[in-house]
Amino acid sequence: MNDFRTAGHAAVDLLADYLGGLPEGPVWQEMDPAARERLLTLPLPQRGRGLPELVADIGADVLPYPMGNGHPRFFGWVNAAPAPAGVLATMAAAAMNPSSAGGDHADVHLERTVVRWIAELAGFPHLPGAGLLTSGASMATIVALGTARSRAARQLGVDVREEGLAALPQLVGYVSAETHSCVRKAVELLGLGSRSLRTVPTDPAGHLDPAALRLQVKADRAAGLHPFLAVASAGTVNTGAVDDLAAIADVCAEEGLWLHVDGAYGAFGLLDPVIADRYTGLDRADSLALDPHKWLGVPVDCGCVLVRDPVELRGTFSLVPSYLRDENAGGLGWFSEYGIEQTRPFRSLKVWATIAASGREGIARDVAHCTAMARRLGELVAAEPELQLMAPVESSIAAFRFAPDGVSDELLEQVNSALSVEVQRRGRTFVTGTLLNGHEAVRACLINPAVTEADLAVLVQEVRAAGADLLAGLSAS
Amino acid sequence: MNDFRTAGHAAVDLLADYLGGLPEGPVWQEMDPAARERLLTLPLPQRGRGLPELVADIGADVLPYPMGNGHPRFFGWVNAAPAPAGVLATMAAAAMNPSSAGGDHADVHLERTVVRWIAELAGFPHLPGAGLLTSGASMATIVALGTARSRAARQLGVDVREEGLAALPQLVGYVSAETHSCVRKAVELLGLGSRSLRTVPTDPAGHLDPAALRLQVKADRAAGLHPFLAVASAGTVNTGAVDDLAAIADVCAEEGLWLHVDGAYGAFGLLDPVIADRYTGLDRADSLALDPHKWLGVPVDCGCVLVRDPVELRGTFSLVPSYLRDENAGGLGWFSEYGIEQTRPFRSLKVWATIAASGREGIARDVAHCTAMARRLGELVAAEPELQLMAPVESSIAAFRFAPDGVSDELLEQVNSALSVEVQRRGRTFVTGTLLNGHEAVRACLINPAVTEADLAVLVQEVRAAGADLLAGLSAS
Ligand SMILES: Cc1ncc(COP(=O)(O)O)c(C=O)c1O
Ligand SMILES: Cc1ncc(COP(=O)(O)O)c(C=O)c1O
Repeated sequence: MNDFRTAGHAAVDLLADYLGGLPEGPVWQEMDPAARERLLTLPLPQRGRGLPELVADIGADVLPYPMGNGHPRFFGWVNAAPAPAGVLATMAAAAMNPSSAGGDHADVHLERTVVRWIAELAGFPHLPGAGLLTSGASMATIVALGTARSRAARQLGVDVREEGLAALPQLVGYVSAETHSCVRKAVELLGLGSRSLRTVPTDPAGHLDPAALRLQVKADRAAGLHPFLAVASAGTVNTGAVDDLAAIADVCAEEGLWLHVDGAYGAFGLLDPVIADRYTGLDRADSLALDPHKWLGVPVDCGCVLVRDPVELRGTFSLVPSYLRDENAGGLGWFSEYGIEQTRPFRSLKVWATIAASGREGIARDVAHCTAMARRLGELVAAEPELQLMAPVESSIAAFRFAPDGVSDELLEQVNSALSVEVQRRGRTFVTGTLLNGHEAVRACLINPAVTEADLAVLVQEVRAAGADLLAGLSAS
Repeated sequence: MNDFRTAGHAAVDLLADYLGGLPEGPVWQEMDPAARERLLTLPLPQRGRGLPELVADIGADVLPYPMGNGHPRFFGWVNAAPAPAGVLATMAAAAMNPSSAGGDHADVHLERTVVRWIAELAGFPHLPGAGLLTSGASMATIVALGTARSRAARQLGVDVREEGLAALPQLVGYVSAETHSCVRKAVELLGLGSRSLRTVPTDPAGHLDPAALRLQVKADRAAGLHPFLAVASAGTVNTGAVDDLAAIADVCAEEGLWLHVDGAYGAFGLLDPVIADRYTGLDRADSLALDPHKWLGVPVDCGCVLVRDPVELRGTFSLVPSYLRDENAGGLGWFSEYGIEQTRPFRSLKVWATIAASGREGIARDVAHCTAMARRLGELVAAEPELQLMAPVESSIAAFRFAPDGVSDELLEQVNSALSVEVQRRGRTFVTGTLLNGHEAVRACLINPAVTEADLAVLVQEVRAAGADLLAGLSAS
């Protein structure tokens, strides 16, 4: 262990320097082609190397080329800066290296606790066994929708695990155009086919229209189909719009649909009293996907799925082969019966550490800071004649575009479609692009509590400068 | 970052002490009920705590209650001791915290490289894009079997992603009774229903019978079903038996089946020249699931799926929503198009570090040591009149039972069904139980290269002592 100790201390110093230095450097930069090539072509080593050398290699070949999401001016996709407590907990979890599948060891019990904490933070009713940590919201969604599928089958008298989908009528689920793509991926994986998803219209701000949902369900039922699921977003990835969860829950209750709420990006927004009202009805979902690796800053990977009914969840996934029968002495159920991972990493330690480092108050303060900064960014954009806000700022995402007067629609689309990459290249901030109501736009997602007003000013300035450059280039050509 | 630095150094010392002290302590012990209760009932903290306090908490409340798999006398399930290099790399990966979904940053390129390394170690043909890291073999199996399903559908002129299973005839897949349960879980998740799995007979040592497979496929086809998949094991979880991969590959080639090989536990066994021959034909699989978090000792979680045809894989899973279009400047494909995770952790760094710390030679040496020790254990068991070896030792698992002369069959089953838990309770070693050909047995899985002959002697002694105690207790009652 002397090697581990020495190399470990060196690694801590290296990472402390790395993390401390991030704000001073560029947010992201294209990799030097030689460095990229070096990583891509590393030959399988024949002989081993010492730990200190490996730590040095990480410093030389890896740390200089981050994704950028540790920097306070990174606003891309939905990627957080890692909570330092979570980073240290990750190392401790790896050193213990249990499988949190089941048994009687600290990790298993801690997972029960942090899942309860997450439910409490999200104001979601929680029974023991009614949820687990996953590698992300995509996995959480698969677990949730798999459970919805098996409930629907059970109600039709079919054991879908045994008989498969062949024994079922055409199940139909409802999403909006703003629903995250992981829902469609889950539906495809589950064998339902994406044609089983109906896209319900949204209002101009991107909220699924509950009245349209009700009509569509009735029409589908009349056509002999079997509606079973509606997915609502507690924060869409494009604009952070929060669907009218209460109204959608009403429709689901009337029509007997499973309500899944995707809170991967946005659920923790309800900790901010200023916007908490938007989340009314979230606690009525049958399942909820959350992502501690997003707004909470738990190091990737960490998603979470919560369901209302633990019996339905376990019934969907429990399969205990003979070599796994031993319960050790704890006598508690196994997490691997509640999901699709058999060996499961000790994710709960980083969740515990990240939440414990801030406490509920600290988390709520950080979330509120992010939403306030996002609203402020919305104001800055609105005040800027060259920029156009593309959606109301409901949680902590601002979507906008570069749209100076007198430029043709076609040119505007061209400029904005290149805008995010141009901003990224410049290295001072990082936004990503998307399509909104048919228009190219950029979006800034604010989930790093380190963000300041000064950072927002840089963001606005960079988007304007990059936009102007692109416009000049495209106009000239 | 001063807090991180100070707490980080404290954490490294704590973990170095922990790892260094493991061999001296009990392998596992039932948790003190008060400590368990404490973890289970921790209230959601309102206020934050400092990093140094959190590290101290880990030392006091978590480290004392491990699963046991860091100890050289842990032989349970298939759980490895973590490679120290992998532990440090895990911390560095968490500090960088990228999403290895795609883009141009070190983690993405390194994942391409380590996937290539894994393919090279396993002697599996590899094209760029033809595989990715997953959270474990269960996920790898879902990805592999999902790809098999979509190929089968495509051959039938159906786009299963769009149309679902409703548009398909009854697909049928082939497994043996020794196939890992994750295959059935995957088939259930994919909506095929477990009734779509045929259990092909095995020989007495647990190998899937290729001739029986051929007959069954023909019979099913004649009955109007659509055979599409066979799963072979490159090391079963119960006994480490390696199926006759070449003969099964022949059947699959003749019959047009997708051959999936489950190498989660055993694939790396082929690095040992003594047993390498058993793996002939592995390179003919259409997909291969491996688990770097098993025999390689990469800290959990880390599985890997390799497929022969990268186009089929990407066609099965690629779904690129508008907010993810940006390719940054790298221009390479996205890993999230090859699987079911969107946000993906930086698993490749711990794989890189673990492999680089040993090199191919070191890994091969460790693997060979484990198989040699397992054969030695088999000899010790065979030499012990009270013990009975239940299967040949083909890779690094020995399965046996306590079976002194003159004890009734019924009593033997009772004793052996309680045996593993009793051994675990005693704390000096750790085996787990299973059912083999209808008999209760224990199995010892040797994947920790630190194991010595002295450890094997303790194992044999403990099983005998625990068996004798149980027998005495049961006979008396
Ligand atoms: C709203 C929403 N849902 C689901 C996901 C998928 O989550 P993950 O990447 O953790 O799988 C995302 C990711 O950005 C998201 O923003
Ligand atoms: C042969 C075999 N296949 C598959 C698995 C499942 O792997 P994982 O636990 O990584 O999901 C295991 C786990 O022990 C195994 O031994």
